[in-house]
Amino acid sequence: MSQVQAVEATTPKWVYKFGAGVADGSAALRNLLGGKGANLAEMSNLGLPVPPGFTITTEVCTAYYENGRQLPEGLDAQVREALAEVGEAVGAGFGDADNPLLVSVRSGGRASMPGMMDTVLNLGLNDETVEAVARRSGDRRFAYDSYRRFIQMYGDVVLGVEHHIFEDVLENYKNLNGHDFDTGLAAEDWAEVIEQYKASVEEELGSPFPQDIHEQLWGAIGAVFGSWQNQRAITYRRLHMIPDDWGTAVNVQAMVFGNMGETSATGVAFTRNPSTGEKRLYGEFLINAQGEDVVAGLRTPQSLTEAARHEAGDESPSLEASMPEVFTELRAIYEKLEARYRDMQDIEFTVQEGKLWMLQTRSGKRTAAAALRIAVDMVEEGLISQEEAVRRVEPGQLDNLLHPMLDPDADKEIIGRGLPASPGAASGEIVFNSDEAEKLTAQGRKVILVRVETSPEDIHGMHAAEGILTTRGGMTSHAAVVARGMGRPCVSGAGGLRIDYETEVMVASGLTFAKGDIVTIDGASGEVLRGEVPMRQPELTGDFAKLMAWADTARTLGIRANADTPRDARQSREFGAEGIGLCRTEHMFFETERIVAVREMILADDEAGRRAALDKILPMQRSDFAELFEIMSGLPVTIRLLDPPLHEFLPQGREEIAEVAEALGTDVDRLKDRVAQLKEFNPMLGHRGCRLAITYPEITEMQARAIFEAAAEAGEKTGAQAIVEVMIPLVAVKAEFDLLRARIDTVAEAVQAEKGVGLDYQVGTMIELPRACLRAAEIAEGAEFFSFGTNDLTQTAFGLSRDDSASFLSDYTTKGVLEVDPFVTIDQEGVGELVEIGIARGREARPDIKLGICGEHAGDPDSIDFCARAGLDYVSCSPFRVPVARLAAAQAALRARESGETS
Amino acid sequence: MSQVQAVEATTPKWVYKFGAGVADGSAALRNLLGGKGANLAEMSNLGLPVPPGFTITTEVCTAYYENGRQLPEGLDAQVREALAEVGEAVGAGFGDADNPLLVSVRSGGRASMPGMMDTVLNLGLNDETVEAVARRSGDRRFAYDSYRRFIQMYGDVVLGVEHHIFEDVLENYKNLNGHDFDTGLAAEDWAEVIEQYKASVEEELGSPFPQDIHEQLWGAIGAVFGSWQNQRAITYRRLHMIPDDWGTAVNVQAMVFGNMGETSATGVAFTRNPSTGEKRLYGEFLINAQGEDVVAGLRTPQSLTEAARHEAGDESPSLEASMPEVFTELRAIYEKLEARYRDMQDIEFTVQEGKLWMLQTRSGKRTAAAALRIAVDMVEEGLISQEEAVRRVEPGQLDNLLHPMLDPDADKEIIGRGLPASPGAASGEIVFNSDEAEKLTAQGRKVILVRVETSPEDIHGMHAAEGILTTRGGMTSHAAVVARGMGRPCVSGAGGLRIDYETEVMVASGLTFAKGDIVTIDGASGEVLRGEVPMRQPELTGDFAKLMAWADTARTLGIRANADTPRDARQSREFGAEGIGLCRTEHMFFETERIVAVREMILADDEAGRRAALDKILPMQRSDFAELFEIMSGLPVTIRLLDPPLHEFLPQGREEIAEVAEALGTDVDRLKDRVAQLKEFNPMLGHRGCRLAITYPEITEMQARAIFEAAAEAGEKTGAQAIVEVMIPLVAVKAEFDLLRARIDTVAEAVQAEKGVGLDYQVGTMIELPRACLRAAEIAEGAEFFSFGTNDLTQTAFGLSRDDSASFLSDYTTKGVLEVDPFVTIDQEGVGELVEIGIARGREARPDIKLGICGEHAGDPDSIDFCARAGLDYVSCSPFRVPVARLAAAQAALRARESGETS
Repeated sequence: MSQVQAVEATTPKWVYKFGAGVADGSAALRNLLGGKGANLAEMSNLGLPVPPGFTITTEVCTAYYENGRQLPEGLDAQVREALAEVGEAVGAGFGDADNPLLVSVRSGGRASMPGMMDTVLNLGLNDETVEAVARRSGDRRFAYDSYRRFIQMYGDVVLGVEHHIFEDVLENYKNLNGHDFDTGLAAEDWAEVIEQYKASVEEELGSPFPQDIHEQLWGAIGAVFGSWQNQRAITYRRLHMIPDDWGTAVNVQAMVFGNMGETSATGVAFTRNPSTGEKRLYGEFLINAQGEDVVAGLRTPQSLTEAARHEAGDESPSLEASMPEVFTELRAIYEKLEARYRDMQDIEFTVQEGKLWMLQTRSGKRTAAAALRIAVDMVEEGLISQEEAVRRVEPGQLDNLLHPMLDPDADKEIIGRGLPASPGAASGEIVFNSDEAEKLTAQGRKVILVRVETSPEDIHGMHAAEGILTTRGGMTSHAAVVARGMGRPCVSGAGGLRIDYETEVMVASGLTFAKGDIVTIDGASGEVLRGEVPMRQPELTGDFAKLMAWADTARTLGIRANADTPRDARQSREFGAEGIGLCRTEHMFFETERIVAVREMILADDEAGRRAALDKILPMQRSDFAELFEIMSGLPVTIRLLDPPLHEFLPQGREEIAEVAEALGTDVDRLKDRVAQLKEFNPMLGHRGCRLAITYPEITEMQARAIFEAAAEAGEKTGAQAIVEVMIPLVAVKAEFDLLRARIDTVAEAVQAEKGVGLDYQVGTMIELPRACLRAAEIAEGAEFFSFGTNDLTQTAFGLSRDDSASFLSDYTTKGVLEVDPFVTIDQEGVGELVEIGIARGREARPDIKLGICGEHAGDPDSIDFCARAGLDYVSCSPFRVPVARLAAAQAALRARESGETS
Repeated sequence: MSQVQAVEATTPKWVYKFGAGVADGSAALRNLLGGKGANLAEMSNLGLPVPPGFTITTEVCTAYYENGRQLPEGLDAQVREALAEVGEAVGAGFGDADNPLLVSVRSGGRASMPGMMDTVLNLGLNDETVEAVARRSGDRRFAYDSYRRFIQMYGDVVLGVEHHIFEDVLENYKNLNGHDFDTGLAAEDWAEVIEQYKASVEEELGSPFPQDIHEQLWGAIGAVFGSWQNQRAITYRRLHMIPDDWGTAVNVQAMVFGNMGETSATGVAFTRNPSTGEKRLYGEFLINAQGEDVVAGLRTPQSLTEAARHEAGDESPSLEASMPEVFTELRAIYEKLEARYRDMQDIEFTVQEGKLWMLQTRSGKRTAAAALRIAVDMVEEGLISQEEAVRRVEPGQLDNLLHPMLDPDADKEIIGRGLPASPGAASGEIVFNSDEAEKLTAQGRKVILVRVETSPEDIHGMHAAEGILTTRGGMTSHAAVVARGMGRPCVSGAGGLRIDYETEVMVASGLTFAKGDIVTIDGASGEVLRGEVPMRQPELTGDFAKLMAWADTARTLGIRANADTPRDARQSREFGAEGIGLCRTEHMFFETERIVAVREMILADDEAGRRAALDKILPMQRSDFAELFEIMSGLPVTIRLLDPPLHEFLPQGREEIAEVAEALGTDVDRLKDRVAQLKEFNPMLGHRGCRLAITYPEITEMQARAIFEAAAEAGEKTGAQAIVEVMIPLVAVKAEFDLLRARIDTVAEAVQAEKGVGLDYQVGTMIELPRACLRAAEIAEGAEFFSFGTNDLTQTAFGLSRDDSASFLSDYTTKGVLEVDPFVTIDQEGVGELVEIGIARGREARPDIKLGICGEHAGDPDSIDFCARAGLDYVSCSPFRVPVARLAAAQAALRARESGETS
């Protein structure tokens, strides 16, 4: 007994068998069997008709490398035994001259790895067995074609004979014999091609193509293991953080053929409609065909069900009609699979001479709409829990549901491509500047703002436009960021377009578009299209509301929105935001009427002059804030004081300066001087944020007054006190905060006294500089809330300008220096640690401090997961990201709850 | 017995007496008695003739505030008793109508606090006692003048009557009576002024000026304690981090008078010459005068010693001659004081009717030269230890000893003032551009480079010039930083000067200076002077070498220099640098000949083009490095790879672009496009540092090759292997470092193989971004050394551009938001913590990692102290700061050794 154990210990179980109804493994052994092997075992265990086969474990791969690229002893015996069982199961024999077993050999690791060797099909064919196949199938052409494909695939993948050598032979043969297509070649032609293939292999390698089928098999197995360390695979693993010691498994499986005559077929099916989510078998098949024929598109596939056939107006019979038994079996299988996997499955099957074989099942890819519907339906079917439904929908996809989409059936003429910078589609007249965009929109026309790039001066035009198209800039360019914030569709960096502002034309794909011509942009795909393209308006079904409600039950993180305008505020509330987490007051400063007063303020010679100009701005800001407070009644509104450097408000070009000088009644030279004086080398690190307020406290006083007067006004109107949070930007030093807080408190006291009302307000700060994170404890002594500004924190932690990095950050991602753009997903290791430090120190000094994050990361699911783990109270994102954030926050909470169990 | 103890316990000792020969307190009781009180007690204990008096302790101040601004019970009795003793000691009585005791009342805390009430003199005078003073002094004018001064001082400081009220009365009286000066007023005039003063006080306060001398005394004591919480004092404490609960003491002391006739006198003395350090009594006195007369300068003071009188060619007799006994006593006292305080003393004394009284002694202020000499002399006299000598010299002062100074006796015509940006003085012809500066210098002429501001393109001109003068920019502007680095005198931000580049003139103080006119700048004072001013060349005496040697014994921190040129490298070695810690290779790129090849590289269309241009640069860089390695033979040389953004090398103006286009044989438009394309919003955060190398690794390869080939060459020449440290700048992510290190290692291997030599090299990185500090552990896996770049780290931690902050940082320091410019002295709380994190994590991953700092902070004594405490291995500063750093490092080490003992 102990002897036997010792033997077992020295020769472990290297090979796991699977087949109809039984398997050595299961889905739980993914690490050992790889994804594919585990899945085949699982299907076998479910009693599904899986072509029999076996999996050589990932441990063999490890042993192979530990052993100097030698396969371990004892493997040979286990493989032979398994192979014999497979042959038995299908009634054939490996190398049998009469009824030969053919197998496929595939790699399959724990994680999918496109960098590795994939598949060798039809292994087991040689000059002898091919004749048996020809005989048994009654189709010589099929047999020879299969053989030549095998030589080609094996030669390329296992023997390392370059692909083009086979291609050259075949091309040459077709030319000499007057064939344009492979389909023209008959059995004899393929026989001749096979001879030439074999001759080429021998010439290349100095030895003949292996006729020994065992040599073929071990060659293929060795090639799979060898491919684990090829350069592509190594690079892929490095980029995707896959450990080298995971290894790959090898799956050897009996071949089945869907092209063995009219009782054979092959098809793919989704257990539900992957486009709409409707619970109906969805898919297509071909009689007497192989899988690749479905993909190649030379023949039109047929519907699976009669219902689908009717809908499609299809002539050819459905599977349901032509192979009713198979269809019934398939239906039973898919119900079993859904019950087992509790998810919509994407199935591949083959019917060989009337017998159904399941080749593959996996969770199917689906549209956002389908994901939503399937998740909700499955809850109602009792298949999954509400929490599971919440987990099932990819938050990033939701965004697409909230915007108009191009009608997938519409004709489209693509004239250019850029980056999918902000989702949604829009059509309108081309305009080339923001003032015109605003003017035409006021006339009720729809416009697309087309610019080389946008700047803060374009805010009003972007707001007015249906969509924005730029020819320069990346996913985090000004245009992209602002458009996402506003929920406007945007295509950025469409480098193939040329814009001439002088003549007001855009040239695209050789066509010239003038101002007023209609174009359509698709911000989900980055396409630019000619003319107006029909669209589908978003329909937020009851399913959406249900899923959101379940998400809200699960999540612990609060969700607020970044909103600067009444429109944004209303949209936010509609999408379920629990307050405004960031209202950027400077966006209000850019509106056409106001910019004059703002410029007057900047150009003033002294405090008195500035105060006079500020007095003009006060009522405008007050009425903005009052409206926001009314819309958000009952919910908190965080208002950030003026942040950007003053020169952003000044005119830039020669002409514009002249215009502004005239409007302000000032001297052109003086204005030029002032613009030059305010110019900064690094404006991002310059005179902005609270630094402006330290120099010009009167700006802070005006803004505080506008806020508090508006709060009083809104309180009176709605009957509920406005919940005001005043936020000081860019604090690095405690004293900055304290000085400004004192000013704000003084104004609050004055307004309360003047109006005879009480105000519910807090004063807090953005934490957006590394130093502020480190000094969070002392800043928290005076600040009632922190909002982490991770955009600027990323810029300063990395020393990386968002506006400038687009040009070289692509080198970083392609060379694998950075995995993701840190402006898109928060860099947890660096920026994240700063946030964690800020949280810990802030809470230590003030345990009830309110902690949030605002900015681009707040709408990114991975970053939201980080925020939840880091213990923030809320995230604040752009209005259209609110549903995304609610869902992502829910998933984060569920993940956190489970992390103890699964780790 | 226990009863008595109980009483003592409830009434603590509030009052500490001092006087000739005895005192209750001593210097050790500084916390209780304040600095002044402790010092008076100490002098008394030494047996020196101190006017008797007493100190009311700081505990009384604390009790006063704890008690709702009430003085504690029991104080009254102790004060009365002490006052009686004082009267006894001087043979007078407080309020005695015949021989009244007059006292001074002064505040005196643990730390000097200019924000507080200072002094009331002559307290004890009233309408009655003034007559006694008049009688006893035989000088009615003196008596009335003293009384009116007392009313004025007491009225202002204690009663809160505004100063101008007394001034108005006096001015009015002088106008009406035809007096221009106070000296014209006789005794009767003062008597009349006194009446008017008293009337004004009564009018202001509604009650008469107190005639009760005890009321006067308690009023003054209360005012001192009250002033602890006045706004100025609170603000001062906040800014200087003085705790509120320290409190102040009050010193009450008998008045003595030097103006009681020809046997009275007053004077000040230094125990050594504070200008040269020579060991000789140095000072001056006046017969029949008060201390303020010496200061007022109406009479010419006399010499103390006969020797000094002869040297000065003075007519009036010396103290030595006119009061030989007093002089002998004074000499004995000063020897006693030096022995006690073991430092040069600054003494105030008064002789009242032949009797010497010591009013004050303190360590005297001195020049750098004197500080050095005194410290070294005192070691040789056995007064202090070598370590003490090292502690005694202010490192910041040393800098001045290393540069030429203006002759203090020379005539000077000041035509402008700016900031003392880089020490030393220089004269030369005015030139307005860097090319001309280089050209004229090559002809053997001396020039001052005069610019509105400088940029990296001016490096060669700054190097050529004797000194640099700018009209814009602060202490950390480009001009200031580079000039200090080069050791060139610089005056920056001389805003009163106007420069016209077109006509090549400078207008200053209404005078016009053309190109070629001679000016002098004093970088130690910020003065700009007309013509050539005589100078004193620095003389480094043997004392300097001695002190430096002692410093080297004490310090633990290594000192290296930042040097880019052979001249800088030689200078560094001369000043004792132990290697080069930062060689900025880009400085070599700006030289006139090379910039063409550099521009060619930047403008190249592809890698091949870049490599062709780099091939031209390679031999130039190699010969630069070879020379540096030879000069620094035996010491390590850290070479930083290319750091600045490429556009810094490109021409800027329209004309310059045209010129360069012609030189390069390229198209003007193409060049313009390329310049525009390379332009960045925030170049500080842009495509620079290792990011350039990630995009264009061929630059790194060229630089690595130049370095290693030069090392091989220098090794052969000197017979000693060059010690090479290759430094990768601006690393934020481990992969950046690893990728480039691999390239560098590959080149090193190639060069070693080609040359058949071994190379001694390490590869490390700048740690200058917050993220790099946080990720130091993983970066250290590949990096053999870190050099903290605290300039950039300060910029990124604060989110503050050094180039842009000058305009508003002054608001920060004046408003007390920042105490010091964080670019001058490292911000220990924020930037410092990042450095500490980087050190800890770097060492954890690689215990033998070499850790240093380079940049401006490395030459700042406070920052060096931080570096020593933080555990860095070395600092690397500009060559002329090396001695400063050696001394500061020694002091830091001594401080660290003591901190355990004194805390």
